[in-house]
Amino acid sequence: MSSANPVAPCDFVVFGGTGDLAVRKLLPALYLRDRDGQLPAETRIIAASRAGLDHVGYRDKVRGELGRFLDADALDPLTLDRFLARLHYASVDAAAPDEWDQLLQLLDQPTDRVRVYYLACAPNLFGPISRHLAAHNLVDETCRVVLEKPIGHDLASARDINDAVGSVFDESQIFRIDHYLGKESVQNLLVTRFANTFLEPLWNSSWIDHVQITVAESLGVGSRAGYYDQSGALRDMVQNHLLQVLCLVAMEPPTCIDRESVRDEKLKVLQALKPLSHNDVGTLAIAGQYVAGLVDGAAVPSYRDDAENPDSLTETFVALKAEVRNWRWSGVPFYLRTGKRMEHRSSEVVIQFKPVPHPMFPGSDGDAEPNKLVIQLQPEEGMRLFMTAKEPGPGGIRLKPVSLDLNYVNAFQRRSPDAYERLLMDVVRGDPTLFMRRDEVEAAWAWVEPMLVAWRAQERGPRRYPAGTNGPFEATTLLERDGRTWHEGAAL
Amino acid sequence: MSSANPVAPCDFVVFGGTGDLAVRKLLPALYLRDRDGQLPAETRIIAASRAGLDHVGYRDKVRGELGRFLDADALDPLTLDRFLARLHYASVDAAAPDEWDQLLQLLDQPTDRVRVYYLACAPNLFGPISRHLAAHNLVDETCRVVLEKPIGHDLASARDINDAVGSVFDESQIFRIDHYLGKESVQNLLVTRFANTFLEPLWNSSWIDHVQITVAESLGVGSRAGYYDQSGALRDMVQNHLLQVLCLVAMEPPTCIDRESVRDEKLKVLQALKPLSHNDVGTLAIAGQYVAGLVDGAAVPSYRDDAENPDSLTETFVALKAEVRNWRWSGVPFYLRTGKRMEHRSSEVVIQFKPVPHPMFPGSDGDAEPNKLVIQLQPEEGMRLFMTAKEPGPGGIRLKPVSLDLNYVNAFQRRSPDAYERLLMDVVRGDPTLFMRRDEVEAAWAWVEPMLVAWRAQERGPRRYPAGTNGPFEATTLLERDGRTWHEGAAL
Repeated sequence: MSSANPVAPCDFVVFGGTGDLAVRKLLPALYLRDRDGQLPAETRIIAASRAGLDHVGYRDKVRGELGRFLDADALDPLTLDRFLARLHYASVDAAAPDEWDQLLQLLDQPTDRVRVYYLACAPNLFGPISRHLAAHNLVDETCRVVLEKPIGHDLASARDINDAVGSVFDESQIFRIDHYLGKESVQNLLVTRFANTFLEPLWNSSWIDHVQITVAESLGVGSRAGYYDQSGALRDMVQNHLLQVLCLVAMEPPTCIDRESVRDEKLKVLQALKPLSHNDVGTLAIAGQYVAGLVDGAAVPSYRDDAENPDSLTETFVALKAEVRNWRWSGVPFYLRTGKRMEHRSSEVVIQFKPVPHPMFPGSDGDAEPNKLVIQLQPEEGMRLFMTAKEPGPGGIRLKPVSLDLNYVNAFQRRSPDAYERLLMDVVRGDPTLFMRRDEVEAAWAWVEPMLVAWRAQERGPRRYPAGTNGPFEATTLLERDGRTWHEGAAL
Repeated sequence: MSSANPVAPCDFVVFGGTGDLAVRKLLPALYLRDRDGQLPAETRIIAASRAGLDHVGYRDKVRGELGRFLDADALDPLTLDRFLARLHYASVDAAAPDEWDQLLQLLDQPTDRVRVYYLACAPNLFGPISRHLAAHNLVDETCRVVLEKPIGHDLASARDINDAVGSVFDESQIFRIDHYLGKESVQNLLVTRFANTFLEPLWNSSWIDHVQITVAESLGVGSRAGYYDQSGALRDMVQNHLLQVLCLVAMEPPTCIDRESVRDEKLKVLQALKPLSHNDVGTLAIAGQYVAGLVDGAAVPSYRDDAENPDSLTETFVALKAEVRNWRWSGVPFYLRTGKRMEHRSSEVVIQFKPVPHPMFPGSDGDAEPNKLVIQLQPEEGMRLFMTAKEPGPGGIRLKPVSLDLNYVNAFQRRSPDAYERLLMDVVRGDPTLFMRRDEVEAAWAWVEPMLVAWRAQERGPRRYPAGTNGPFEATTLLERDGRTWHEGAAL
């Protein structure tokens, strides 16, 4: 298939190669790219970790794990053997540069191939690993380094990390992953806006009343409880995924889709976000934490039980009202919402248009809901345009809501690749368009910082909401006092 | 059901009550309105014709005919008996006012009910019948008269008819039927445009490249051969149906949907149509006539065989390019096309948007077809918005056409009433919004007149096209020389 043009030969060096992210996401993604013929024969995957395995042991481990994260029909013995033969293991303590011999030995060959250092480990190791790589002469201009979120836990720590990595790698070599940008549906936001004529005339404050961005999960914190309790929804979701989606919705048309143009435009949006004062945080941002409840009919425990911290004040839900201060969006609120243990798993962008300027169908105008464009990002990708039609019938003109629907899975009859498949290939290609630039990451941290500060100082902690609901009632009143409501639609 | 609020008690007097139109359209429509409870008990239907029947004979005839034009499940014995009891018959020679006794007797009672004179007969009788009605004191302010098309065969004859009927009835009492305006899908054009926000910003020359209106029939002339050979596609379809649809697409938003506001706006469109010079007719209008061919795999004869006139020069196909000279539509051509014995039965409005002002997806822009909104009027009502999406895949950004679809039958799960059901009830209600006003009819005749004149003078006659095709190739080149093509899409 044409989308599987092979990338250049490459060494993927995965720090944290035996960890959760590597096993759940990176290796399945690389396997699928291999299956589709996109990895040249020479391409190697080198796991670096402290797990103390060897090549054979690592291959056995991966052979066992892949089946858990790939569909059975994706796995065939020939491809699996070919893929496993690419795997190598180096016992490395990232914090102890004296014990890198195994890795150095594996990399002791002419580097005519692309070398990718994938830091699938805690962010406090990003700086040290970068320095050790440099100290061992493993960094040249063809290298790339991939940083997993979180890039720090606030603006200052993000700057420290960016400084440390930036002292070794040029910004053009640094690929900060936000896997939301690798989602088909999120990339499709760009295409929907900029490869079609019909949205642009509508895409501004003249015709749009407000925008909603919801990323709702029905799961709890699961195996990430330890990390999550230090992070919370604001750092885990809002600072990166939700603000990135907001940027793609709100950005001006770039000149072209290249490495800097898109990111320049996204940065402008982040810079146009109205800073929140301490008082604003109290009125425009809601933190929530789930208590025990029912999800899909099954009883689930509270966050505090999940986190094993009976006094945790970590928020598992955030709703907030943002303002983009520029010509296009003046007066158009962006309502953002994300949470765990919500009613459904659903991510969507809702463009709520203004009502018609002048109602003209007598007696029926109460039925004419303003138009609404719902761009669903997951679980399935699709679009639904809510509009008004005439109800069939021989009487007067009665208005009824109908919808124009597009389900991408049905439209394309093809599996959408996982975000990591796309993003890993972009790293090898050296295309950073869908990765976060330093200035973006820091602008996003700067904007969420007042909430971090205010919530840390707040004694009462987040508002409680029962698991299986759409968050605390304060999230509802956030919109209701503006005369609006959250879109709670059925999935496409 | 709420759409069946009963109308006022009424006498329908149908001149031509035993004719084709009455049997095929009017009586089935009235039956269905009766079934749905919309006709009060007192309502009568009086057939006036020269067929020489009596009440019983007429009821027997209708009982036998209704089954041919209604679905079996629409007919139930109780409703049928109730409906037939409403029927009366008066032997009337419209041209001989001395022989109206039977009708006078039937109408010799206090007229506290609405009285509708439905002239389902040849237009040369419209004037005489109106005069006879007046002479017999059958016209007062509560009467309405319904005129079937064609209102004349050119501007002068239309004026004559309008003068004659207008000398008896006030314009507010005259209901000129264009059954296209009674179609759910055509009325829905108004709702789509004016009860939704999202189309209006796009609905002008800034964003629309051109408009196509196609009314394609796969049938031949059938039992109407005699009438049709005197008429042709321009008079039969373009002067009324296609121009009415054009008006609804192009009109400015009216202040409200009432009896005059919509018609005022439609008239403005007709007045804004650029008049065709004799030379324009040669380049901007194509007449066609079908020759023998295949429709749905079956051989069908030529029009000249159908018409039993081996030298007929009557056009069975028209394609033309119209121009609406106002601010909204400056430079946006309206291409109109209608024909018999075409490939499919399909009526649709195609709004072709301009391409994006600046392509930004490298290598893929060839795939980005401009957006297109197809509003299908028949056979099924629906809307399809052709847009561009990202083709799923881990490669670069490849563009693919997709569509947002709305099928009204699926959306509403309800039968759309026939146009006549709607329009007959509007007549009783006294609502002329969906009927053609005198000035509209005459403006439409004035605009088509140069084609009538030019084609009458032309010796070579219409271009030939094989039955089962989409018209003569000159209709294709009409668009091709503008760099455009007809939309030949699959039905929804």
